[in-house]
Amino acid sequence: MLKLYSYWRSSCSYRVRIALNLKGLGYELIPIHLAKDGGEQHGAAYRALNPQARVPLLVDGDFVLNQSQAIIEYLEVRYPQPALLSGDARQQARIRAFCQTITADVQPLQNSGVLNYLEHTLQLDADARTRWLQHWITRGLAALEQEVQMLPASPFVFGGVPSWADCVLVPQVYSAQRFGCDASRYPRLAHIAAHCETLPAFQRAHPETQLDAVPA
Amino acid sequence: MLKLYSYWRSSCSYRVRIALNLKGLGYELIPIHLAKDGGEQHGAAYRALNPQARVPLLVDGDFVLNQSQAIIEYLEVRYPQPALLSGDARQQARIRAFCQTITADVQPLQNSGVLNYLEHTLQLDADARTRWLQHWITRGLAALEQEVQMLPASPFVFGGVPSWADCVLVPQVYSAQRFGCDASRYPRLAHIAAHCETLPAFQRAHPETQLDAVPA
Repeated sequence: MLKLYSYWRSSCSYRVRIALNLKGLGYELIPIHLAKDGGEQHGAAYRALNPQARVPLLVDGDFVLNQSQAIIEYLEVRYPQPALLSGDARQQARIRAFCQTITADVQPLQNSGVLNYLEHTLQLDADARTRWLQHWITRGLAALEQEVQMLPASPFVFGGVPSWADCVLVPQVYSAQRFGCDASRYPRLAHIAAHCETLPAFQRAHPETQLDAVPA
Repeated sequence: MLKLYSYWRSSCSYRVRIALNLKGLGYELIPIHLAKDGGEQHGAAYRALNPQARVPLLVDGDFVLNQSQAIIEYLEVRYPQPALLSGDARQQARIRAFCQTITADVQPLQNSGVLNYLEHTLQLDADARTRWLQHWITRGLAALEQEVQMLPASPFVFGGVPSWADCVLVPQVYSAQRFGCDASRYPRLAHIAAHCETLPAFQRAHPETQLDAVPA
């Protein structure tokens, strides 16, 4: 059985949980608490599995793989149906570019390592950290909003079935809400994310339904 | 003919230039100066092509594609030989994970938008900005160094021919040098990058050989 090392609030873990659920794959979830005791990801046992000391991490038999997008690609190759990438080469490229805007231009600026650096090294107060988060998240989502506004209206980012783009979008919109971003800058994306969240595959992946979730 | 909108010092553009050269594909390079006059990428003409106002951007006939990794994947699908991804599903996944560590965990923290925010919004001085750059770049490359140290010695990151990993590594090592990072933290990666730079495909992609390069 597949194993996923995950943290409830990690948006990169959340992406992979959605992908696993959309593909109907069972998996054992192993929580790694990124904050408790300085972060369980820094413990020797976990570092032996993943020297990068990050989540998510997928274990498939004797194969260990880090990085959320490499993991989703691997799942797509190994378990092609239902497909998270569809259409011709151009359509697949558009889906990948959409994902990369979030995975390379937005999420890296909100991750816990960066937030720790802002707080402890740069000594930014909570308001300045929130402005940082809102700046990058809103900028990225507004750019993507402009792109999706040019597509025909559809329940998911790219058409009538969920794709890789929805796996990446929904965790980013969740983070945007958490950090108080202005959803009027990305109304269609917010609408798509809200629709996704009505579906069981997304609900079971949601941070607040995880076994390691900490109630507010 | 393919067109690439590029900036000489953009490491994301540099990745794509390497990939195009490794595949032996001719392309017209169209420089977009990211700094002059507040940045040509913000001009109306370029924004009409790429609302994200970033480089690189590939134009293939009537198809326009942004995001470096989506572009390289598209080239790989459309022009499969020579392959930048090879081996079985596990090996390909390892190559992708290596790339993502740079494209999602390192490069996003050094890009010009982030550096502008550090300087103008957070009012960090040049030393503090350099410490930021060195922190994230060295951390990422040191983590990857630990991973490649477990592989058999080889001229490229993954074996005897250049792969996607080398397309992403070489620009990151170039940035690391530019920002004064300590190469003793990633000796094997530095050695691989130096070897790559002896090859014409990499030399012709190098920032300082670009037609828009500004001499030091």
